[in-house]
Amino acid sequence: MTLLPGVPDSVRLEEIDEPPLSDGSILVRTLALGICGTDHEILEGLHGSAPQHSQHLVLGHESLGVVETAPSGCGFSPGDVVVGIVRRPDPVPCPACAAGEWDMCRNDGYTERGIRGRHGFGAERFRIEPEFAVKIDPDLGIAGVLMEPASIVAKAWDHVERVALRSQAWSPRNLLVSGAGPIGLLAALMGRQRGLDVHILERTVAGPKPALIGELAAHHHASVGSLGDLRFDVVLECTAAPAIIVEAIKRCAPSGIVCLLGVTPSGLTSEFDIGGFNRKLVLGNEVVLGAVNANLSHYRQAADALARADKLFLERLITRRVPLDRWREAFEKRPGDIKVVLDFT
Amino acid sequence: MTLLPGVPDSVRLEEIDEPPLSDGSILVRTLALGICGTDHEILEGLHGSAPQHSQHLVLGHESLGVVETAPSGCGFSPGDVVVGIVRRPDPVPCPACAAGEWDMCRNDGYTERGIRGRHGFGAERFRIEPEFAVKIDPDLGIAGVLMEPASIVAKAWDHVERVALRSQAWSPRNLLVSGAGPIGLLAALMGRQRGLDVHILERTVAGPKPALIGELAAHHHASVGSLGDLRFDVVLECTAAPAIIVEAIKRCAPSGIVCLLGVTPSGLTSEFDIGGFNRKLVLGNEVVLGAVNANLSHYRQAADALARADKLFLERLITRRVPLDRWREAFEKRPGDIKVVLDFT
Repeated sequence: MTLLPGVPDSVRLEEIDEPPLSDGSILVRTLALGICGTDHEILEGLHGSAPQHSQHLVLGHESLGVVETAPSGCGFSPGDVVVGIVRRPDPVPCPACAAGEWDMCRNDGYTERGIRGRHGFGAERFRIEPEFAVKIDPDLGIAGVLMEPASIVAKAWDHVERVALRSQAWSPRNLLVSGAGPIGLLAALMGRQRGLDVHILERTVAGPKPALIGELAAHHHASVGSLGDLRFDVVLECTAAPAIIVEAIKRCAPSGIVCLLGVTPSGLTSEFDIGGFNRKLVLGNEVVLGAVNANLSHYRQAADALARADKLFLERLITRRVPLDRWREAFEKRPGDIKVVLDFT
Repeated sequence: MTLLPGVPDSVRLEEIDEPPLSDGSILVRTLALGICGTDHEILEGLHGSAPQHSQHLVLGHESLGVVETAPSGCGFSPGDVVVGIVRRPDPVPCPACAAGEWDMCRNDGYTERGIRGRHGFGAERFRIEPEFAVKIDPDLGIAGVLMEPASIVAKAWDHVERVALRSQAWSPRNLLVSGAGPIGLLAALMGRQRGLDVHILERTVAGPKPALIGELAAHHHASVGSLGDLRFDVVLECTAAPAIIVEAIKRCAPSGIVCLLGVTPSGLTSEFDIGGFNRKLVLGNEVVLGAVNANLSHYRQAADALARADKLFLERLITRRVPLDRWREAFEKRPGDIKVVLDFT
């Protein structure tokens, strides 16, 4: 799956060279590739860049594959089911990247497989470095492709819980998740795994989303009105819609934490009460943080969370599995889609 | 110093009863009382409430006094220089208050001496409970009255540094403080004590503020333009002015932390790019948090910070010492004021 970054609708399925050894010593046969909003942005030419000396970019950052060959002693063996980590630090790393926290890059010099300056995982075979591969429970089957989005959510939870340590008395009771896409539903799943009373703000009332919300024993709010005067100790904002972001901040309880997870285009202004925002955050000791990407520790946390989850729930998050010969359908947006996966098997 | 909460300009100096034993077992003779923006709001009738069964409120929450009598074994002795902690938990405390973190109150049931439902320290003598009194280095002299505002700043630093632990690679280089009032200058002082390159955004170019900024070896920016394209790992916003709050958030570096410390009235909207705010926080892993009040640990941190500071610098923060017989002058706002103190000696 290649495309010309910046050129809308340039995506195509074509024969390319075998992946070069410089991509990593482990050769992986691809099982599945998840498609997400970032991929759609890249397809529309809004995002993405090719590697140096290349015109095209191999698409794909939500991977799932099986090791074909690996050097002995590298920690991986043929047959291992693996996922590839997306981000790589700058060759001259910032302090965060040097510490293995490439998700906290400070010099903006990172690359990302399938997104920014580095070929992705959307090929029959890819290569990866042992330090950027993560093993996954083979029993998860196709649901293992949820590992990369789950790592984003695991990071959000990790940061929320570290920020929460500013108070020794932190004892959250409830969680609001806005948006029941793959990120929102995985965020709610991990909230339930923490024993929280979970509320999901999601306007869709038909199709698989309400059913999956119900399976989590979470409360479904199809509109803001149904939230009444509820306030939440943790709010995970997954819609990136400005009106919902404002609502998410309003719904934060005293000493609560809002984590923003969606990426909104900038440049559109609207009326906003900055003074009220400031007053609420100060008097309530509230926190609003953003989180993007994930490092190795978050992939490991995600692997744990997926292993503890109900397998049927995870499989039902994957609403369409598109075989490679009908690959174009994987990039269509259809009603009822949650996670669409390109099936390489 | 009493007033009728909600009634503008009702403040007066009058004879009142000796403080009741129910206020605490330690009897303190007042040395000085600091006046701050909250006091001005209370004087204007915008804020404040009297204790139950009382019409009036004894004003004052920035205290400095000397112990006259204390029960043996309580940890305090006659002659100790002390400051009183402001906030008290609800009789039915929330989990935070129960853990001694009354500054993180979740049920809004707290009281505050001199502000909310509890008499303040603005009297010749006050009483206080041993667990809400903090000893202070007597060598600080009148500058000990800066303890309460310093506790607010110590809390802000404490929270910033705890939030920063979401990354093991945290290594801040620089600090932006907006506003060179007492809070801003104490925030900058504590930034210098941490070895940071400190920049202060303060429009005043004459009077004591620029001189004090210079004494801290901090950079003085009289306008946003002079900041150029600088970004900061830590931003402490102390003006509560909406336009400066927006600027403070813009100036945050990737992985940086903005702490809001001022209280703005709500209800005034302006044009704001919520999408851009969200995008910046997410892609930069940035944090905006609010902080208010302080608990015992922050008073202790403040005592340490003041003890390590240059005494002359602290004394110069107190730009006017008003004797009790001219008490009305302490509530006037004059050009060049930083901290105004009512002198009870």
